[in-house]
Parts: sequence; C-alpha cells; structure tokens
Amino acid sequence: MSKRQLMDYIFYPDSIAVIGASKDSEKEKAMGWVGRLLEFRYKGKIYPINPGATEILGLKAYPSIESVQDSVDYAIITLAAPLVPEALEKCAKKGVQVVHIFSAGFSETGDPERAKLQEKVKRIVNQTNIRAIGPNCFGVYCPASHIICNRGLPTESGSIGLVCQTGMGMMLLMRLAKNRGLRFSKGISYGNAVDLSAEEFLEYFMSDPETKFIFTYIEGLKDGRRFFNILRECVKVKPVVILKGGLSESGASAAASHTGSLAGSRTAWQTLFKQTGVIPVESIQEAVEQLVALVNVPSSVGGRKVALVGRGGGAGVVATDMCDREGLSVPRLSVDTKMQLGKIIPSLAGSSVENPVEIGLGAFGFSEHYAEAIEIIGSNPQIDFIITFFIPAEYEEFLREEWLETATSQLLMAKKSLSKPLIAVVDPGGSMEVFKWAKELQQRCIEMGLATFLSLEDAIKAASKLIKYYEFKSHETE
Amino acid sequence: MSKRQLMDYIFYPDSIAVIGASKDSEKEKAMGWVGRLLEFRYKGKIYPINPGATEILGLKAYPSIESVQDSVDYAIITLAAPLVPEALEKCAKKGVQVVHIFSAGFSETGDPERAKLQEKVKRIVNQTNIRAIGPNCFGVYCPASHIICNRGLPTESGSIGLVCQTGMGMMLLMRLAKNRGLRFSKGISYGNAVDLSAEEFLEYFMSDPETKFIFTYIEGLKDGRRFFNILRECVKVKPVVILKGGLSESGASAAASHTGSLAGSRTAWQTLFKQTGVIPVESIQEAVEQLVALVNVPSSVGGRKVALVGRGGGAGVVATDMCDREGLSVPRLSVDTKMQLGKIIPSLAGSSVENPVEIGLGAFGFSEHYAEAIEIIGSNPQIDFIITFFIPAEYEEFLREEWLETATSQLLMAKKSLSKPLIAVVDPGGSMEVFKWAKELQQRCIEMGLATFLSLEDAIKAASKLIKYYEFKSHETE
Repeated sequence: MSKRQLMDYIFYPDSIAVIGASKDSEKEKAMGWVGRLLEFRYKGKIYPINPGATEILGLKAYPSIESVQDSVDYAIITLAAPLVPEALEKCAKKGVQVVHIFSAGFSETGDPERAKLQEKVKRIVNQTNIRAIGPNCFGVYCPASHIICNRGLPTESGSIGLVCQTGMGMMLLMRLAKNRGLRFSKGISYGNAVDLSAEEFLEYFMSDPETKFIFTYIEGLKDGRRFFNILRECVKVKPVVILKGGLSESGASAAASHTGSLAGSRTAWQTLFKQTGVIPVESIQEAVEQLVALVNVPSSVGGRKVALVGRGGGAGVVATDMCDREGLSVPRLSVDTKMQLGKIIPSLAGSSVENPVEIGLGAFGFSEHYAEAIEIIGSNPQIDFIITFFIPAEYEEFLREEWLETATSQLLMAKKSLSKPLIAVVDPGGSMEVFKWAKELQQRCIEMGLATFLSLEDAIKAASKLIKYYEFKSHETE
Repeated sequence: MSKRQLMDYIFYPDSIAVIGASKDSEKEKAMGWVGRLLEFRYKGKIYPINPGATEILGLKAYPSIESVQDSVDYAIITLAAPLVPEALEKCAKKGVQVVHIFSAGFSETGDPERAKLQEKVKRIVNQTNIRAIGPNCFGVYCPASHIICNRGLPTESGSIGLVCQTGMGMMLLMRLAKNRGLRFSKGISYGNAVDLSAEEFLEYFMSDPETKFIFTYIEGLKDGRRFFNILRECVKVKPVVILKGGLSESGASAAASHTGSLAGSRTAWQTLFKQTGVIPVESIQEAVEQLVALVNVPSSVGGRKVALVGRGGGAGVVATDMCDREGLSVPRLSVDTKMQLGKIIPSLAGSSVENPVEIGLGAFGFSEHYAEAIEIIGSNPQIDFIITFFIPAEYEEFLREEWLETATSQLLMAKKSLSKPLIAVVDPGGSMEVFKWAKELQQRCIEMGLATFLSLEDAIKAASKLIKYYEFKSHETE
C-alpha cells in the first residue's frame, strides 16, 4: 500500500464501519459517529457494528466486523479502551485499511496499566497490515467527503489543512475561525499516535493540491529528525503555522497527561522554528489571526514599512511602538504626500497628516475623504503596506446605518484604488451596541477579501510574522 | 492658592463659564459643553459666553467673561486657536481660577506659527495667577460633580483615577472598561500641557480618598525627575498602571504630532518602570485588563503558583506555557488532591486530574462537580490562586439557559467556598450564538465580583503583573 493510497483511504474512504455504534437511536443520533455521518450526508457505505442490534438509525447493523460481506476501507472504534485490542485484531483480519481509534483511556491517563494497553494496541498495528489513527482523538475532517467530525464546523471546503494532535484544539480553531471567514481543506487529529502521526500527515498535506496553507498543533513527536526534514520541505511549498504545546517544563508535563507525549526542550523547538521557517504562534487564538493574515494578505507584500491610518486617542502612537517592537517600521511620509493629505484632511484635533495618519470623522462618523487619503498614502514609495484601524467605541454616537454604509463604500474604494496590501482592524470592544456595528463592519471587510483583525496588536503581530516568513522564503530560494 | 484648593476648583467647581458656546441650540446641545453640562445635570452655575447671544439652551448668555457679575471658578475655552490668548487674558483679569483650553491647533500641528501661539498662551499663564489645562484636550471627568466630558461614559463613580495626556484615549479606556464592570473616581486629560501636567494630577490622585487605583497615559513630560519621585511615592500608597506612548523612535515622532511632546528613550522609561514599581502596559486594551485584575483580585494573593482549571483542546497545555513565559508556575498537585479529584471527575477524554485540571462536561455542558473540584484544588497548599477558563465555542451545542444557570450557580458556589483568589476567563470567540452566551456568563461573573477576562493570555499577563506589583511593594516595605 503506497502512501498516496493510504491517505486516500483516510480522507476519501468508500466505506466506514462504526464499531460500537449505539442501539439507542436518540444517543447515536446526538453523539454517535453513525449519527454524524448521516447528518452530514457521507456518500459512502456506513456499517454500524453492534452485537445487540439489527438496525441502527435506519441502517442494517452487523454483530461484528467479520459479518460485513463487502470490503471496509475505514473503521471508527468507539468502544471502551479495554475492548479496543480485540476489535483491532478483528479489523486487521477483515482487511480494513485504516482504523480511527476514537476511544480514550490509554497512556494519557498516567495509569501504568493503561499505558500497557496502549503498548498492546501498538503491537497489533505493527504486526498486521492495518494502519491506525489515535487513540484518544477525533480523526478526520474532510468536507469534500462529507466527513465532519463534529457539529458547528464548516461544511464548505477551503484552503487550510489542519494537522492537530488534539481533536478538541482542531475543532476549537475551526469554530473560532469560521466567522472570521476561514475555511479548511482537510483536518486530522491523531491523539496518542500509536501509528500515524504529524510526520505522515504533513507529508501528505505538502503535496495535497486542495491545501494551500497548513496549521499544525503538536505536543510530542515520534521522530524529531524526520519531522524537521518534512517541515523544511513543506515550508518551501506552502506556509506552515505551528503551535507547540508543552514548550515549558510544566507545559511538557501537562502535555504528557493530555496526549501522553514527550515534549522536548524549548530551545530545541525554537531552533527548529528558526531553521525550518515555520511560523510559530502561542495559542489557538493567535493561530486564527495568523491564518487570517496568510489567507488574505497577498504574498507580494514588499517589505516591513507600514502606514497606520485611523483615528483614536493615542492609538496610532501606541501602535507605532508595537510596530517597532515587532520589527516593522512606521516611516515618515514625503513632504509631497503630506501636502496632498493636508488638502483633504482638516487640521482638527484627531487629525494628523504624519504617519500614523489620523483622519477626522466626517458627517456620518467616517470621513468621505478616507479612500482618497488611502490612495495618496499608498502612492508613497516609502510605504509597503497599510494597516487601517477603526475603534468604534470612540465614536459610539455616530454608529448607525449611514456610518456603516459610508465605511463600507469608502473601504471598498480604498481597496480598489490601492496597489499595496491593505489590512483592516475593527475593534469590537465597548458596549453591545458598539459590538453589533463593529461586527457588521468586520463582516463587510471579510466579504471584500480584506485581512480583518479585532485589535491593532493582533494585526501588527500577524503582519510581522507573515513578512518574516516571506523574507525567509525569498532568502532560501535565492 | 494651595494645591488642594486648586484641585477643588478643577474637580468640584461651583461655576463654569463656556467661552465660545454656540448660539445654534441644536449644535450646542449635540456637541457643545453647555449641552453636556446640562445633560449630565451639573449642579453649579453655568455661564455661556457668546457676544452674539442673549440666551443659550435656556440659560442667560453673556457677551464676555467680564460681563459675568459673580465670580467664576472654571472656564472652558472652545474658541479657534488664534482667539485663545485674548480669551485667556480676559479670564485672568476676571479672576477665573482655572481654564480648560479645549481648542486644538497648537504645537501638535507641527506648524511653527502654531507653536509660537502655544508659547504665547504659556506666557500669559505664567505671568498671571490663572492655571490652565490643555490646550488640545478634553479636560475633566468627575461623576460626583456631574462633569462628564462626553457621552457614553459612566455616570456613576468608581475607584479608578485617570491621568491621561489624551482625552480620546481616556474616553476610549472608559468606554472599553464600562461593560467590564469598571468605574472611575475622576479623570483628567491635559493635552499639550502648557501648565498643569501629569505631575500635579498624580500628586493629587495619590492623596485623593476616592481614588484607589491610578491609570496614566503619558506621551511626554515637563520634569522627568519630579515625575519619577511622584510616581515612586504614589506606588507606595496605591497601584499605578502606566501606558507610555512614544517608546520607540518613530512612536516618539508620532507623539510629537499628537500632543507636541518630547518622548524620552525606551531604556530610560524601562528603568523608570522598574525603579518605581509602576505596572507598565502596552495598549489601552491591556490597561483595561490590568485594571480588571487590580480592582477584582484581592491584594492578599499569596504568590505565583497557579492552578488552571477548565476544559479545552490543549488550551490547558498552551496556557501552562504562557504561565511559564510570564513567570507564573503551574505546580503539580499533591497525590491526595488528585485522588480526591479522581473520585468526582470521570476519567474521560477531556478530563485530567493533573494541573492544568480539565473537568469534563456534565449534562448541561457544565459539570455539576465543578464547585467541589475548585474547593479541592484550592485546599492544596501548593496553589496560591486559580484561573478557571471557559471556551464555549468548544461546546456550542450545549449553550442554552440550563448551561448558563448551572455555570452561574457552580461558579458562585466555587467562589464562596474558596479562600484563595479566583480569576475567570470566558472566551467570547466563535459564532454570534457563542458570543451571546459568553457575554451573559461574563456579566454574571462580573456581578459576582470575579476578575473576568476574555482570553487566557489576558488573564495570565494581568495576574502576573499584579503579583509582581505586590511583590515589589512588600519588598519595599520590608
């Protein structure tokens, strides 16, 4: 069985057996895998396995995997941990290609008996032709195959591939990212990794044409050297964002009780980040911000020189300090640019024609000269890209339909006229009323294809890491 | 005039003249100072000054300040910048105690003519008995006196005093903080600071009994040595959070065009932070987080050893790394504690009795053993305080009234039974539905008096800085 075929069985199986499907239809519908496969209209054959049932959710049920006459590509084992080895042996005998061991209760418990049980599972996998995902994980997410491992996840495909040791982390990322406009090609969570692990999946995602960007959450590794080499190759063809759980000593011990992983030292990992050119992040939330930047900011962003354009009580001053800290520069604008800006921006409090540029409010709480100002700033050769920020809590009294419409049309014009990347920040902080209007404007920005952030700090950090990645890449290919 | 009297005139004036009140009542009502003083029921006398009006918003108007017969404590000048010197001279002659120069258009414009105008204003102040706030600022906020400098700010008093060079920054902070449960004793924004500046106001707030906590946003200083000494004294009696705009070279140049300030070097400021024991933050948003921690976490927090209790896809592992980075430790629990926890937390995926403790979901998406678990963890001598985290996007399917009620009653029980500080994180990320329920739970947590954050990272950073402050203080008083 070649690698390509293996991954086909995993992401595009023609048939799935669910070993341990419940005969309680309410329960199976609400919590079971048969329930989920049906709900999301999986197109292949589904074989519910339960010795006490003849039918589950309208499908013929089988007493055991051997009693299924046709071949089975993929089996999901949802039995209690002690029952897993026997089920696995039966799957191997039946010729099932891949099993996903959903069951938890192995080495992550810290119990030596359970660690032995995991060793037994591992031995069976090694001694047979079967391949395994898990135990203690959510397995596959693949909207193209209608395999959606939980509710609340996007059912449409996108361009981001997810390789996550923890299924809950993978799903959390998708749920946080969904209303930020992100979609995913495929996802895999592989838990305690008795067999298949990050290395195999990253290698597959590297050449998967559906996947343009990769995010990976790692707690531990099987083979550090191999992982390093794969990551290095991967980064040459697509950006990889990495979140390493267990970088600190106590974090490593937390990882041990989470997925039974050995975590490795912080220094070793930081060296790996640097040498491979992966983009490290420090939380699932930051991963979402970084992916927003990767998907929406063109890779042609020319350099680190940013113009900050917005309005807000020292926000520009503070953001300038943040840029400096993150290795971006906020250069002075040319005299010519300032003169042009001076003509359209009134010299009131809350306005400034120097970078950071502050544009006063117009009649609807949004200057009608905004788009023109962006065009003037963008034509400045000192500037590589623009971060524009809106903090509606500052002018709550203006928030109504006219504000939203003016903001939307001005932003759209600005985006069209600008030949350099434009990044938007719409801060939702403040009252419920502010949140509601900020959310609306964010949505409009996302629909325009703007990289849209909720805070200046998030935008600046994500842009900085993005630029460092492109610098690394251009340096590598020189 | 002693200091105490000066500040009384500023925060509790018996009469206010508004020089440049508009005779257009619509405009004055919507945007003017007379409109705001009336709207928020300022109890003193209001004297609108406009040579072309006899009445403004139902109040007798005066052609000039001299024509007011009674004495005037405080005057707000809202005229165009070139008209300010003459108005100021008239105020001085009339014996007005303090003027707030709201007008902008001075040295912050970068125009040499305007800088000269500011020098002229400064000269008048120096040569007369009058004291001045501004120009280019929003002046006083003092709910006890019903002086509310803009709409959307809290009208109830609280315990935080604000000393902000920028009025927009001060108001933004209040607007962001309002629905996080924070309230303010007094606020002052002093803009270009031709006379009164951070030094005078900090000195006053230090001994003001209404003010228990201080936040200050500084761009530049008049007298660094004096500022340092005041800050040092201040920190001995109440915590001071500081945001310094213009720490970087380009940030400093941005500050120059914002409030015409000279900013000082990053190193000098970092030394000052360290030696005075102030709590530095890097944005208005972070200032809000830090104040949430200061106001709600008891100063008795004993040390840096934290238990993380929650549930979430590697969130505990990642948070452990964050704690390590911020100088907090996540110690192992005693065997005894773990055994006790093991009895009530089922050993399922998503549960762990090791720190970070993960508690599986109960029937309503919130374990009915939560409060008990918190009590057990809190009784562990290895633990100084607890950060408990909820990421509702992870279990969106459970979010309904029962979830909210179970969560509320369990959290209330936990808070009551625990003798150590408890900090809550309720992450609002995800869909609108998640946001709605998260917001509700946040509100309940705030009402219980819990320090409530929107992300683990915010909570960990704020707790760490809080503890460092208390360590500094106890070290100083030893």
